[in-house]
Amino acid sequence: MWGRTDLLDESDEMVKHRTGEEKNKLKNSEGITFEENREGAVLVTSIEVNEEGEKKLGKKKGKYITLTDLTVSPDQEDSFKALEKIFIEKLREMHHDLNLSKDSKILIIGLGNATITPDAIGPKAIEYLQSSSLTESAERVKVVMYAPGVTGQTGFETSDFVEAISKAYKPDLIIVLDALAARNSERLCKTIQLTNTGIHPGSGVGNQRKEISEEVYGVPVTAIGIPMVVDGPVLYADAMEQVIHYIASKVEEKGRPSSALAVTPMVSNKKPSIDKSVLQPIFGEWVTWSTEEKRKLFEEVFVGKNPSLFVTPKETDAWVEHYAYILSNGIESWITTR
Amino acid sequence: MWGRTDLLDESDEMVKHRTGEEKNKLKNSEGITFEENREGAVLVTSIEVNEEGEKKLGKKKGKYITLTDLTVSPDQEDSFKALEKIFIEKLREMHHDLNLSKDSKILIIGLGNATITPDAIGPKAIEYLQSSSLTESAERVKVVMYAPGVTGQTGFETSDFVEAISKAYKPDLIIVLDALAARNSERLCKTIQLTNTGIHPGSGVGNQRKEISEEVYGVPVTAIGIPMVVDGPVLYADAMEQVIHYIASKVEEKGRPSSALAVTPMVSNKKPSIDKSVLQPIFGEWVTWSTEEKRKLFEEVFVGKNPSLFVTPKETDAWVEHYAYILSNGIESWITTR
Amino acid sequence: MWGRTDLLDESDEMVKHRTGEEKNKLKNSEGITFEENREGAVLVTSIEVNEEGEKKLGKKKGKYITLTDLTVSPDQEDSFKALEKIFIEKLREMHHDLNLSKDSKILIIGLGNATITPDAIGPKAIEYLQSSSLTESAERVKVVMYAPGVTGQTGFETSDFVEAISKAYKPDLIIVLDALAARNSERLCKTIQLTNTGIHPGSGVGNQRKEISEEVYGVPVTAIGIPMVVDGPVLYADAMEQVIHYIASKVEEKGRPSSALAVTPMVSNKKPSIDKSVLQPIFGEWVTWSTEEKRKLFEEVFVGKNPSLFVTPKETDAWVEHYAYILSNGIESWITTR
Amino acid sequence: MWGRTDLLDESDEMVKHRTGEEKNKLKNSEGITFEENREGAVLVTSIEVNEEGEKKLGKKKGKYITLTDLTVSPDQEDSFKALEKIFIEKLREMHHDLNLSKDSKILIIGLGNATITPDAIGPKAIEYLQSSSLTESAERVKVVMYAPGVTGQTGFETSDFVEAISKAYKPDLIIVLDALAARNSERLCKTIQLTNTGIHPGSGVGNQRKEISEEVYGVPVTAIGIPMVVDGPVLYADAMEQVIHYIASKVEEKGRPSSALAVTPMVSNKKPSIDKSVLQPIFGEWVTWSTEEKRKLFEEVFVGKNPSLFVTPKETDAWVEHYAYILSNGIESWITTR
Repeated sequence: MWGRTDLLDESDEMVKHRTGEEKNKLKNSEGITFEENREGAVLVTSIEVNEEGEKKLGKKKGKYITLTDLTVSPDQEDSFKALEKIFIEKLREMHHDLNLSKDSKILIIGLGNATITPDAIGPKAIEYLQSSSLTESAERVKVVMYAPGVTGQTGFETSDFVEAISKAYKPDLIIVLDALAARNSERLCKTIQLTNTGIHPGSGVGNQRKEISEEVYGVPVTAIGIPMVVDGPVLYADAMEQVIHYIASKVEEKGRPSSALAVTPMVSNKKPSIDKSVLQPIFGEWVTWSTEEKRKLFEEVFVGKNPSLFVTPKETDAWVEHYAYILSNGIESWITTR
Repeated sequence: MWGRTDLLDESDEMVKHRTGEEKNKLKNSEGITFEENREGAVLVTSIEVNEEGEKKLGKKKGKYITLTDLTVSPDQEDSFKALEKIFIEKLREMHHDLNLSKDSKILIIGLGNATITPDAIGPKAIEYLQSSSLTESAERVKVVMYAPGVTGQTGFETSDFVEAISKAYKPDLIIVLDALAARNSERLCKTIQLTNTGIHPGSGVGNQRKEISEEVYGVPVTAIGIPMVVDGPVLYADAMEQVIHYIASKVEEKGRPSSALAVTPMVSNKKPSIDKSVLQPIFGEWVTWSTEEKRKLFEEVFVGKNPSLFVTPKETDAWVEHYAYILSNGIESWITTR
Repeated sequence: MWGRTDLLDESDEMVKHRTGEEKNKLKNSEGITFEENREGAVLVTSIEVNEEGEKKLGKKKGKYITLTDLTVSPDQEDSFKALEKIFIEKLREMHHDLNLSKDSKILIIGLGNATITPDAIGPKAIEYLQSSSLTESAERVKVVMYAPGVTGQTGFETSDFVEAISKAYKPDLIIVLDALAARNSERLCKTIQLTNTGIHPGSGVGNQRKEISEEVYGVPVTAIGIPMVVDGPVLYADAMEQVIHYIASKVEEKGRPSSALAVTPMVSNKKPSIDKSVLQPIFGEWVTWSTEEKRKLFEEVFVGKNPSLFVTPKETDAWVEHYAYILSNGIESWITTR
Repeated sequence: MWGRTDLLDESDEMVKHRTGEEKNKLKNSEGITFEENREGAVLVTSIEVNEEGEKKLGKKKGKYITLTDLTVSPDQEDSFKALEKIFIEKLREMHHDLNLSKDSKILIIGLGNATITPDAIGPKAIEYLQSSSLTESAERVKVVMYAPGVTGQTGFETSDFVEAISKAYKPDLIIVLDALAARNSERLCKTIQLTNTGIHPGSGVGNQRKEISEEVYGVPVTAIGIPMVVDGPVLYADAMEQVIHYIASKVEEKGRPSSALAVTPMVSNKKPSIDKSVLQPIFGEWVTWSTEEKRKLFEEVFVGKNPSLFVTPKETDAWVEHYAYILSNGIESWITTR
């Protein structure tokens, strides 16, 4: 569970500190194509790394697409409808070059542990697909679907399972659905990630399983994931950042009392630059560390501790239902109209 | 679903009309060993057919064990405990000749559709096994467990699934758990059946799938099943028999009014012989037909009709929970102490 | 569970043997209004009994509406959509005279045992309503919803529960949702029944609970039910009828071999009249009995026996989901637009 | 949901900084009885506040019992068995003075939202109780059980629900089961709390509902709760404490390099006293704040933000099952042997 797609998007260190202009220059200079579009409330980031990029950046060659809607919530059917629509478009885009026909065989695998709510997106999506029109239509015979459960339940490596079925069924494409561990609490349950670079089941919690990828099976693999949990250190570092910015805005406010807007804590997109000399007496040297450095300290402190705690949205059950539903609906729709 | 083990027991046409003495003679004359014991409320029937028996009887060579407790019910924990205990003994007996060691690998497959209650015994038992000590103990790595779902859900033949995993895992034994269609409404939910002759998934409803058996995979296969549904014709023929016996006992009662006990309808084990000449005016020629012949007429009438109706106990959900639990517990116990 | 609305529709003895012309005459002569319309595949039967009718017929005064679509099935979303649409209209019609305003308070009760699949329609519908817009919209405070479970679970009479909540909340209307025991296997899962004459929880299995009705609470009560199970005697008598008609059509066919169509067993709407003299040798006097008389014999034979067996469609789980969904959706839609 | 019993135990500010000797003195001087015992791995804290104590301390008069086993985990059946045994004893102790007889009527209410995993302990426990021997035994009629769901689902105040049923059933004792929000991440899922001072449903998240208590209903109320979630500020402050102690131990270690053991981060029971002058350059003034003060700053920063995030153990689903099971088992056992 908590698979980890080797994701590249605008939050990645590679690109996040660059201005729009710089981002556009990435392509020629570094073997990477970066594109960012807003469709309604959804921010679509498409990154493509070529062989040159892979060598230079150490990021796996392939396509990386993220759909993010920070406004989405379980009680807003409309946002989910919009997200689903764009998801279908991106499924089409992602698989365009494969030239799949009506006769192409697709193997869909829902990873994750159905008995742990935030990890149940994969199994749930398969459950929905198994009661969808896919199991009745003519295309039926060309789609095979399983939610194998996790290695700890079945006693069999998940990647070995996929390999065994793949050998027997000989699909033209493998689609893998999974819940992800987020590296950023803001993205939690707000993002759908697609990549054709494969997946490392369970890599999120440190247990290295064999990867599920085209390199391993000789069949194209599309990994689709939703960030469903954050682990402690990521969250604590985020929380500290917010405390520091809050104090900073208070201090700034005092200095320039006219600027009433500065009081608003955490304007998430444009954080004010912080006058660290003012904050240092309160928070010490720490204030000068980057979020990343703080996260690493928390990780050092918490390594091997509270391993069983994680952070998840209050309405996890509802989020899981919604995402399992749009993954299932989107895939059904794409497959029946491909 | 509704798999069908090629079951042989005392209800079988082969043996049921014979007296105890005749049963004992079966062995020498016909290549069949028949044994019947009562352990508490549980009737244990063990039949073994050898090669000679297979040729003569047309029944597959192998062992057939049935445990029947007609008094068991979901609110009697004690009966289930007793049944579980004998089930464990029979698991041991059934596998004695395989000489399984601690290192022997076992593949356990729960057949059936988890979304149809009476068919969910297999998947439920796997769910229980997956949260049992088997997944934590040292023996762990030697057991692999899946509930693949039915072909109509996954798009992949269940027997092909078992074959694919079997090829990859190379087990020393395959155990298959399934809900069965009963040929006799009295046995419904009252019987556990074990056989080493394999299973034909879905054969109960006429869709011929490839069988799961040692012949096919080259690995010993033990099929364990619980009769969970009866189909209409079986039930209607049973019901007609009961009506006829009821009327017969009424008629007899009038003739010999002293015999008050005869009124009790359906004394299921010792049915009185019926004076058909008296009943014929009421039920016509029909009264002279065997239950089997009546069932065949019902089948002829209902073929292709009400295909979606079946008969199941009112507390199906509770029965399923209980049997999934004792299958899981029994198997766990047998595996950890083998 | 298996509540029983005192249903009156065209299958009722009161009306079923009458011709269309006779039905139309019922009104004036007997204090009963009968209306039958077909909307697409849905047959809508509306019956109204007035005080005179109640005295003459012994049927409770009030409205009885049934929606029947014999073609509906769990994999046809469209049929369910159509049924839902008509259901909403009938909710409106049924409650028209109550003049409910936006401020009227509605208490919705889902009866039944959530742990017995075919009895779970009421609890499931409440579950859906509890995650519907009703719990968020402004109308919210005017709707209260509970699935209390059955007396055997809670230890408290269900009707006492409804009374307690009714006293505390003081609703203007009580809606009761329940699974029903059908008196006719053909209607199983094909019918929605509405009545304002109240409900007798559990009356279907003989345990007389206090009724939930306007007479008892002083608040209008609308009972909405779906026939989900048939009990044995009803089914056996139906089955015998079909066998007899099948043989009759075979016999007739022999006589007039040109009429090939007559072979088709069970043309359910227009059954051929049976030449009983021909069938009597085969089935005896029995053939002359009415279905009702046969059912009564089966009841006499089976009273107190196999109490735990019932007949339900194979896809019960799917039917329950679908009906719970359209009840929930229909009620939500009616309430938010009333 | 996330009800809050007005809990008093050794973690309370009232008692936690006192030495054993001081604790023992609490009784006479302040109207409070404090007792602490260890039974195996379980720490049992019993506090009783009398009228004098209520006035002086501002804590509600009554009994407060906590059972804490920091070593318990979902895969250790034995720990749970031990916890259940002590739980039964404490149920007996808590209700000793009520002199309940076999004829006393008990109303058991499971609070919480069954669709949000960590809040489902109450509903799950009721589900288990409803399939326990309580519903079949002679005592049956003397116990009534409901899981009403939360106000946001039903549209009806939970306390009004309890009042309505209480008026109708007239119980001699009300038992309320609930999931709690912990004030301390260490206690999460490790504690059972009992009190006879009542409960404030939903008070954990700030929505003030009417309390469920003897004062309100005139019937003794026992509240039993399990801490299942921690909210962000509590967790962040805990995390910061741990970072500070970790750095402190590192600094100390450098100074006295012989003491290798000091490296072990977070020795949770005996934290080393911190040399703040050394840490101040790194963490600033902050290091001098108490955990409570840090928590308040986090609360100020996060008020109204990420309201939907909470922290819960990874195996929430398994914890919920286990606690629902021991609550149900313990209560069943106590009721049938009272």
